[in-house]
Amino acid sequence: MRKIAVIGLGHVGVTVAYTIYAQGLCDELVLIDKNEKKLRAEEYDFKDAASRMLFHTEIKTGDYNELKDADVVITAFGDIEASVKSGDRFAELPINRAAAKEVGQKIKAAGFKGVVINISNPCDVITSILQHETQLPKNQVLGTGTFLDTARMQRTVGEAMNQDPRNVAGYVLGEHGNSQFIAWSTVVVNNKAASDLFTPEEIEKLDKLPVEGAWKVAFGKGYTSYAVATCAVRLAEAVLSNAHLFAPVSVYLDEYETYIGYPAIIGSKGIEAVVQLDLTEKEQEKMWQSARYIVRKY
Amino acid sequence: MRKIAVIGLGHVGVTVAYTIYAQGLCDELVLIDKNEKKLRAEEYDFKDAASRMLFHTEIKTGDYNELKDADVVITAFGDIEASVKSGDRFAELPINRAAAKEVGQKIKAAGFKGVVINISNPCDVITSILQHETQLPKNQVLGTGTFLDTARMQRTVGEAMNQDPRNVAGYVLGEHGNSQFIAWSTVVVNNKAASDLFTPEEIEKLDKLPVEGAWKVAFGKGYTSYAVATCAVRLAEAVLSNAHLFAPVSVYLDEYETYIGYPAIIGSKGIEAVVQLDLTEKEQEKMWQSARYIVRKY
Amino acid sequence: MRKIAVIGLGHVGVTVAYTIYAQGLCDELVLIDKNEKKLRAEEYDFKDAASRMLFHTEIKTGDYNELKDADVVITAFGDIEASVKSGDRFAELPINRAAAKEVGQKIKAAGFKGVVINISNPCDVITSILQHETQLPKNQVLGTGTFLDTARMQRTVGEAMNQDPRNVAGYVLGEHGNSQFIAWSTVVVNNKAASDLFTPEEIEKLDKLPVEGAWKVAFGKGYTSYAVATCAVRLAEAVLSNAHLFAPVSVYLDEYETYIGYPAIIGSKGIEAVVQLDLTEKEQEKMWQSARYIVRKY
Amino acid sequence: MRKIAVIGLGHVGVTVAYTIYAQGLCDELVLIDKNEKKLRAEEYDFKDAASRMLFHTEIKTGDYNELKDADVVITAFGDIEASVKSGDRFAELPINRAAAKEVGQKIKAAGFKGVVINISNPCDVITSILQHETQLPKNQVLGTGTFLDTARMQRTVGEAMNQDPRNVAGYVLGEHGNSQFIAWSTVVVNNKAASDLFTPEEIEKLDKLPVEGAWKVAFGKGYTSYAVATCAVRLAEAVLSNAHLFAPVSVYLDEYETYIGYPAIIGSKGIEAVVQLDLTEKEQEKMWQSARYIVRKY
Repeated sequence: MRKIAVIGLGHVGVTVAYTIYAQGLCDELVLIDKNEKKLRAEEYDFKDAASRMLFHTEIKTGDYNELKDADVVITAFGDIEASVKSGDRFAELPINRAAAKEVGQKIKAAGFKGVVINISNPCDVITSILQHETQLPKNQVLGTGTFLDTARMQRTVGEAMNQDPRNVAGYVLGEHGNSQFIAWSTVVVNNKAASDLFTPEEIEKLDKLPVEGAWKVAFGKGYTSYAVATCAVRLAEAVLSNAHLFAPVSVYLDEYETYIGYPAIIGSKGIEAVVQLDLTEKEQEKMWQSARYIVRKY
Repeated sequence: MRKIAVIGLGHVGVTVAYTIYAQGLCDELVLIDKNEKKLRAEEYDFKDAASRMLFHTEIKTGDYNELKDADVVITAFGDIEASVKSGDRFAELPINRAAAKEVGQKIKAAGFKGVVINISNPCDVITSILQHETQLPKNQVLGTGTFLDTARMQRTVGEAMNQDPRNVAGYVLGEHGNSQFIAWSTVVVNNKAASDLFTPEEIEKLDKLPVEGAWKVAFGKGYTSYAVATCAVRLAEAVLSNAHLFAPVSVYLDEYETYIGYPAIIGSKGIEAVVQLDLTEKEQEKMWQSARYIVRKY
Repeated sequence: MRKIAVIGLGHVGVTVAYTIYAQGLCDELVLIDKNEKKLRAEEYDFKDAASRMLFHTEIKTGDYNELKDADVVITAFGDIEASVKSGDRFAELPINRAAAKEVGQKIKAAGFKGVVINISNPCDVITSILQHETQLPKNQVLGTGTFLDTARMQRTVGEAMNQDPRNVAGYVLGEHGNSQFIAWSTVVVNNKAASDLFTPEEIEKLDKLPVEGAWKVAFGKGYTSYAVATCAVRLAEAVLSNAHLFAPVSVYLDEYETYIGYPAIIGSKGIEAVVQLDLTEKEQEKMWQSARYIVRKY
Repeated sequence: MRKIAVIGLGHVGVTVAYTIYAQGLCDELVLIDKNEKKLRAEEYDFKDAASRMLFHTEIKTGDYNELKDADVVITAFGDIEASVKSGDRFAELPINRAAAKEVGQKIKAAGFKGVVINISNPCDVITSILQHETQLPKNQVLGTGTFLDTARMQRTVGEAMNQDPRNVAGYVLGEHGNSQFIAWSTVVVNNKAASDLFTPEEIEKLDKLPVEGAWKVAFGKGYTSYAVATCAVRLAEAVLSNAHLFAPVSVYLDEYETYIGYPAIIGSKGIEAVVQLDLTEKEQEKMWQSARYIVRKY
């Protein structure tokens, strides 16, 4: 039996839950939110859809004890408004730090033994706090991190080449935030290296697009939801089916002493392995800068 | 090629669009909204998800000309806040009447030849206006109507019997609004008629639950979205695949001279046939009352 | 984690396995067959498809020990040629009786604690032997039985009414074999009772079609596979997701002292409940005849 | 409306059709086979499953005129027994050459304007004949070719690295037959080039596995079906949704004057573009050898 819990039913959390529900990806779906009225509203809205769904999913609500035998917990609490107002995901930190502590302790108290996938921002810092509070092994706690930013890069590079984003390989690394960067040495479009496809000027222009695009969405509708939710769901699927998915996520790297966006293999135990990239010196320096930026914020 | 357009990207419209997108139900998805900033934000949020989707869908935005070769248009404009504040879907009518005229004329001007599935409230009245303005044959314009309320009835009756809602057959008829009613003579749970399962007192109690449930969701989160979006998507699928789906929807009935919730067969041409029910006299009277209520509001 | 084992990789078993695999319905899929060469061929054919699948599934082969933590075992061993040659599913009994004993004992020895869904023919008898040998509670062992024949009835009645088979409700009861019968008192097409839709002559004609149709498929291609596999997969899904599915299956009925096709509620524990129908006297007599026919064959 | 026709309902063709049907990938599915008894058997087996399917698909049979408005035709005729007996896909050529001419002319006569995806072997030659006979533009006729062999390479290289096959990029090029080769310069596992991962001895060993694996399946069960069917279905999806899929398929290359396995972009018009690879000299020589081998066989 597949069991997933979603903690925090804001725009992102409830979209994650709905995506899982509409596609029958788990057998039990646990919804948790501090706002009781909102929680009940989403519960009934989901249950009203049950007879029109292609699959059956048991909807459970509100009880951290349900986490005891859950496979995956997706955390999506947060105060997106603070981030959007300031244009910096760290603006959410004061509120989310406290929430992360509380949620982490409750996850621990419930006896959860599965994998935590964190979406809450600032993603790398909150993932770190959740790992600390849950006392789960580091491989069992990860963040969506630059898995989303990589998808944005695939879109923007794809658009520049008039190609489907699936035909773009490569990774955005570092903070899920303004210090992230595209590791161009990893970018390949239809088997051609980025260095053969773009001039330095074009690369400089493309460099800014994923972050700019993210804020365009956030400013335009007050939050971002569909792309990040889709990323979280793919990671949850990889855990449930032990898919050995190769994906850049927020993962703890000893070298940098922090959670940070870097490729890893995702399976039923969370992070199976970190994949070492042969980055250029310039890219390595950017990793260090981004890591230092994250660590300073703890 | 399957092509669907969604007009109005509020909570409901964008959930409809996302559901279609995430499940690969069409090949081209056209998004239309008067709020240009919101439209762009949703467009980019969708496109940022493209490389993480299981299926490819072309996202197009903003242009009514795209409707020329679309199979289905789903209308979901509206001012839900007015409805929620007043507890009556007719509170949206003044605003939505004007919007329906404008949207209907634009659909007509675009040369649309497919099926309109309307969600905007008050559903039966707006569906009627859309049919009038688009000048499409009546069978090619329908509303989600009591397809949603029936799903709510299936849930509440199912809960009363400790049964999955799919095991509950039967229909809610009439206005998608406060004058709707459960046609108990059609309700069957696991091959047992409702009259053998419930006392009149229980039926009286159950009668109120679908409408109460709807407002509980609307008051709790400010709108309802997932169940109604799921209903609209199922109807769109029935049109695309010519599924001959038997479903209670907002359909034009000559006898009542209005669109109103009643079972019909849905296929590629929209309403293939209306299915005559053998209602009790009391139920027939309720149909008339509900129809008169709708007609007075035009 | 969802884990399903399929025992017997003939045309039916391998189609069941492929359907599950292609739709990502479980996380681990165990394939078992006595023909080692065939087993390896199917294993590699499945694994060669892995990089083109939308979902990840772990394919395991050959080892009954894998059943220890499986949720569902689907049994599909058998000698369909014997049945097809003779036009009677009981022709397979001598061979399948021995196979059922062996398979049942191996399932027991493996410590399997889930639900057995049997397809092997004659379905009701083999299901009974499997229950006896596995010593699992009777609710945890069921057969596809007349769930398939009911689907055939839905098709043939639907064709007679020019309706989609989903719009036809009602059940075929009794033996999954020549003594089965359509319980016309349960048949409803778009909310109209069969008695209002068909003359006795039409019903007599319709009565023979499901069985005739089955043999037409079997004689035409040497076996039947897609419809029965689809039925088995739907039952497996109902068990995995605890869907409380109302379906006519081969279920043990105390009254008849045998497994026989009759409606039940299917959930994570297998048969949750048997649903009592109000059959006509004539239908009750047919049930007894069919039950006696099955029991004589044990 | 999505419409697909499958010509030839042997093990492969019918698996293609079933995969499309079970996942609701098109709205109309046309089945064509010269064996009328087999055709009817598969038709009824499919239709018997209809009420248990999650999606509705119209099943049509036997009539080439249905191709007039079809989007995709998948050809899967052939005499696999001849291939399996001899261990060479060219053994099917004498029979399949005649069949290809006949089928191609019928496709032309029907006024088909979509994309032909050929599976029949020898794939590259039969694809060429089909293009010649249908007189469709070369981009609208393609073969599954080494899309399947590439999947096998992804599996075998993945197994060698203990990685999921999806984490292996790269292509098998040339004939879909014994002269095919792995273009190692394109092979990348989790962002590491094959040359950094394997010794020449290991590569020599890995080189043989895809072809060996194919024959292991074919000898073990008399044919191969699931992997090749999955490949064909993915290509059909790419055409239907205009996915711009980057995939190695059997495509006409002017340079080699033949259809041959090479990467291309697949969309609604079939081959949108051929992607030029920077192959090593040795790989280029292998391409020429493979091309010459195919051409000699015409």
